[in-house]
Amino acid sequence: MSDLRDRVRGPLAPSTAAQRPLSIDDVEIHGGPFGRWQRINREASIPLGLQQMEKSGATPNLRLAAGEGEGTFQGYRFQDSDLYKQLEAVAWEHCRRPDGDDAAAYRAFVAESAALLARAQRPDGYLNSHYQVVKPDKIFAELEHSHEMYCAGHLFQAAVATARAGLGDGLLEVARRFADLLVRRFLTGGDDGIDGHAEVETALVELYRLTGERTYLELACKLIDNRGRGLIARTGLGPLYAQDHLPVREAPTAVGHAVRQLYLEAGVVDVAVETGDADLLASSVRRWEDLVATKTAITGGHGSRHDGEAFGERYELPPDRSYNESCAAIAAIHWNWRLLLATGSGRYADLIERTLHNAFAASTSADGVRFFYVNPLQRRADLFEDAYLGRRREWFACACCPPNIMRLVSSLGHYVATTDDEGVSVHQYAPGVIRAGGITLDVETEYPWDGSVRLTVRSAPGGAWTLRMRVPAWSGSARLTPGWGEPYPAVPGADGYAAIRREWRAGDTVTLDLDLTPRLVVPHRGIDALRGCAAVERGPIVYCFEQIDQDSPLEDLALLPGAGLRPVERDLPGIGRTVIVEADAVRLPPAPPQGLPYTTVSDAAPATGPATAVAVPYYQWDNRDGGVMRVWMPLAQPSRR
Amino acid sequence: MSDLRDRVRGPLAPSTAAQRPLSIDDVEIHGGPFGRWQRINREASIPLGLQQMEKSGATPNLRLAAGEGEGTFQGYRFQDSDLYKQLEAVAWEHCRRPDGDDAAAYRAFVAESAALLARAQRPDGYLNSHYQVVKPDKIFAELEHSHEMYCAGHLFQAAVATARAGLGDGLLEVARRFADLLVRRFLTGGDDGIDGHAEVETALVELYRLTGERTYLELACKLIDNRGRGLIARTGLGPLYAQDHLPVREAPTAVGHAVRQLYLEAGVVDVAVETGDADLLASSVRRWEDLVATKTAITGGHGSRHDGEAFGERYELPPDRSYNESCAAIAAIHWNWRLLLATGSGRYADLIERTLHNAFAASTSADGVRFFYVNPLQRRADLFEDAYLGRRREWFACACCPPNIMRLVSSLGHYVATTDDEGVSVHQYAPGVIRAGGITLDVETEYPWDGSVRLTVRSAPGGAWTLRMRVPAWSGSARLTPGWGEPYPAVPGADGYAAIRREWRAGDTVTLDLDLTPRLVVPHRGIDALRGCAAVERGPIVYCFEQIDQDSPLEDLALLPGAGLRPVERDLPGIGRTVIVEADAVRLPPAPPQGLPYTTVSDAAPATGPATAVAVPYYQWDNRDGGVMRVWMPLAQPSRR
Repeated sequence: MSDLRDRVRGPLAPSTAAQRPLSIDDVEIHGGPFGRWQRINREASIPLGLQQMEKSGATPNLRLAAGEGEGTFQGYRFQDSDLYKQLEAVAWEHCRRPDGDDAAAYRAFVAESAALLARAQRPDGYLNSHYQVVKPDKIFAELEHSHEMYCAGHLFQAAVATARAGLGDGLLEVARRFADLLVRRFLTGGDDGIDGHAEVETALVELYRLTGERTYLELACKLIDNRGRGLIARTGLGPLYAQDHLPVREAPTAVGHAVRQLYLEAGVVDVAVETGDADLLASSVRRWEDLVATKTAITGGHGSRHDGEAFGERYELPPDRSYNESCAAIAAIHWNWRLLLATGSGRYADLIERTLHNAFAASTSADGVRFFYVNPLQRRADLFEDAYLGRRREWFACACCPPNIMRLVSSLGHYVATTDDEGVSVHQYAPGVIRAGGITLDVETEYPWDGSVRLTVRSAPGGAWTLRMRVPAWSGSARLTPGWGEPYPAVPGADGYAAIRREWRAGDTVTLDLDLTPRLVVPHRGIDALRGCAAVERGPIVYCFEQIDQDSPLEDLALLPGAGLRPVERDLPGIGRTVIVEADAVRLPPAPPQGLPYTTVSDAAPATGPATAVAVPYYQWDNRDGGVMRVWMPLAQPSRR
Repeated sequence: MSDLRDRVRGPLAPSTAAQRPLSIDDVEIHGGPFGRWQRINREASIPLGLQQMEKSGATPNLRLAAGEGEGTFQGYRFQDSDLYKQLEAVAWEHCRRPDGDDAAAYRAFVAESAALLARAQRPDGYLNSHYQVVKPDKIFAELEHSHEMYCAGHLFQAAVATARAGLGDGLLEVARRFADLLVRRFLTGGDDGIDGHAEVETALVELYRLTGERTYLELACKLIDNRGRGLIARTGLGPLYAQDHLPVREAPTAVGHAVRQLYLEAGVVDVAVETGDADLLASSVRRWEDLVATKTAITGGHGSRHDGEAFGERYELPPDRSYNESCAAIAAIHWNWRLLLATGSGRYADLIERTLHNAFAASTSADGVRFFYVNPLQRRADLFEDAYLGRRREWFACACCPPNIMRLVSSLGHYVATTDDEGVSVHQYAPGVIRAGGITLDVETEYPWDGSVRLTVRSAPGGAWTLRMRVPAWSGSARLTPGWGEPYPAVPGADGYAAIRREWRAGDTVTLDLDLTPRLVVPHRGIDALRGCAAVERGPIVYCFEQIDQDSPLEDLALLPGAGLRPVERDLPGIGRTVIVEADAVRLPPAPPQGLPYTTVSDAAPATGPATAVAVPYYQWDNRDGGVMRVWMPLAQPSRR
């Protein structure tokens, strides 16, 4: 074991970084949405996931591979990865509350799983129940769609998590045996294969960070450099689908299967950081800038197409058919977190916040036992082809998302704050406690419902240090009120943070007041699918309009360009605490139902009477009747029928 | 052979109809776009198609089935259908010009194909090279995706065509043997199977019309009534994909794979007409009204999704990702033609016109040797994932479209005019000659470039009869000028036709002047993807804007709600004769390239200087440099950046 091992108890522990991550158990979250999600995750989601490990075939498949079970292989070739993500979720949950009621059960689940995996693993280190049971003659022979290294990556992440969480090294031993096999075959053995689904790259780097075994890093480097050489056989979905169309350093834009690209980017940043490869890092940053400017939904969601679960072209961002896979939101958070640590720039924390509170948060029902795989921004009336969309489900045949959601929620504390040689940076606002070295901060806030965040220094080392507080780009104005002086404008630096450097003493307080005035937001004119529409945001929350809250058919309502937006606190059945926004609107005139849906401009009728449209946070949708929903509302215009 | 056989030399010969079709050789087309398409079809497309029959595997596969060839099966399981459609194209071309230069070659192709098919056919009548060669144990065992009856349907249509075109009965004998097998198995044999891809239904009815064999009609009835009973096993694409979700009589809206639904509707109308089933006909009309009002592109295209080549939901009509398969345009024309004959209503002829001049015409390059499979209404800049879209190709692995296009072009004369007990109805305007019973009409026109259509009676039987001329719904005003009197407004009846009843004499003329003033058209407000946009139409032609014709980047141009639209006649390289439209436009201000593509309303910048945007007919796009293209242009609005 290297000495890197114990630095951080959390998913990411880079050996060098502009901002250093904290351990999950160094951050307590006491309430707010994050606190609620963590409670529901522990009480409802994780127990459901643990049940599903047996029911969905994940553990039975591994018993087959171990020569123990009866029956046939169930599910997809990447079914093992569900178990790995579930193990990781349990590990971080244990790390967060090691003395919780479930500690013994978690320990047993990890130990039993590690033992099963060790029995299923071949003597050479290979481990994949699908290939061992169903296609032993095809091992490593169809990498373009086999997901063998993808599953290995999730195994490595689970192993890192259980080791860092103090749940024993059983899983780590299994992981290292498999990683060593991959090194023998794909690094020193000269095989140039790459997996059609990126994931193992980031996982190998973390396994290197944990163990100090440099060949894992070297293999990750090689796998990244091998992309774009046409090594993946042309599948029906083509080389773009798996980011094999161009070398990573040259690829100007995110393409193909969104989750593949985003996991790949996490690995790219990891490799760049560990090898000091500034060019490689710069290529990822270029794609980030392009992606955010042209292919990112307002919720932070990624992937505009059902077809290939793909990004689509620049500015192709349809609200109805957007895919926005829950796993893509998670993968994007992984990537942004790595960029934030590497650069210290708040724009990545801004996007993490947007993604967490919207694209990601929407993936789970308020009660934690139903999930979205696809997260559209619109649900129409009278659905036929899309009847299955827009309603969460308990589980999926392809269940990549639910355990992925669970592992992120249980590790949420990891993403709240960081430290560096100058002091502490707070990136995400939630009530609780932050411990960074000798510094302890209390955070009191009703965020995101209220914009006031009060930080109290509970303990501090001697000497001056800097407290950096992110001022989100959406906050039109912000104010800082120190306990020792007058309020003043919180003007962020180029990095997006307001900083106070002083010799802090225990008891010092500073309050950051962010501007939560609701905002009417319009899309870039390049986004054809959203032309003539506006959305409502308040703080980090993107809103949506559900039919259940309206007096008129939602499809007959339009907002006004200068619409008044009034936030109102509510406790809604099925949703709980929330802030709705009432928006000034108009009722559109009836649209003729017959004939071709195209008419000359002169036939268009103007809007009619005033109305009020009611918006709820997007992430809270589909917790009531599951009817019509829109994030993007038409803006009333003259000459529109 | 029944006495129905010789009634009509064309694709459709109903035994009862409000309007009776004419034979292909009763209508001569002497110029205009239809004439150009027919010339190019004969000179370039059909020769290419005939070459492809060998190259693409269609005839080699059948030789394998006949035990003659060497090698392995090539292509898709429905590869035989390419040959059948090619045979039909040749048959109608022969019917149109039986003494053309290619007559001998056409006869030989038909005779050789019929002989090959006869040798490949099993003694029991079964014929499908894929199943005979690759999967003999799966014959009729996987109907949900086998395309066995789909291919049979195209065989029957080819057999009907060659028989009606006077090219011998060899193909018809093969077809009847297969049809008799289907009857034995699926009608009298009690098997309740249905094909996952509708097509055989309409073909069986036509085979019945040709031969008088009533069991073919009865089988078509049964196949239609069997839909919606869950007989198709649930494939990955689900029962909606193949219209097996609801009984045909109950289905309220077109769903699933567009070509499947549209071929099915052709069969539904055929069965309803032949059995006098008014309820069944009414169900098809209801779906037509719903489809036209909510799921039809401005070009007449159908199918909004790449995913499943499916319709999508009501008002889901994206311009960029619309599928609008060329085969769907053809199938829609088939369906509309049947409804027109059944009801006499001009709304079906209106949609045929829109589809022919736009969705269908776009499918083929100006030189006739490249084809679109997918017909989007927008091609963006800097494509990655869609790089293959928006450029026509010579052929396709799945080549359903090219020979389908050819068979429609060679039979175009069939769709121009009809007769009934009252007289003659002209549905589509093209220069040429129409012969209907004892009546002969000359048609002189530069349509669609000019709106004037002059009809001259060359011969007429004694007594009064009615000349009906369609007044398209797009024509704001129209005028009739009889040779014997003063001009007067051409006010159509409820059926959409202006009618003149009189005792016509040879030499009588009447001129119909349609209003070709260019129109700025806006979408129904339910179509989210087109909000804030307008398109240009002139006469039956939908226009598009290609980058090559603009002074500014196309993406920076917006039309004005009251835009002046000026038609200008041109002869463009690569396109030939056309009428462009110059539209008053504005240049939009630069859009910030960085950061999230969403901004608050107050940040939006107004439009800047005036400009001119140049439009060409949509069907003529991609005949030059294949750059950026839009049918739907943004309308300039205040507070849009």
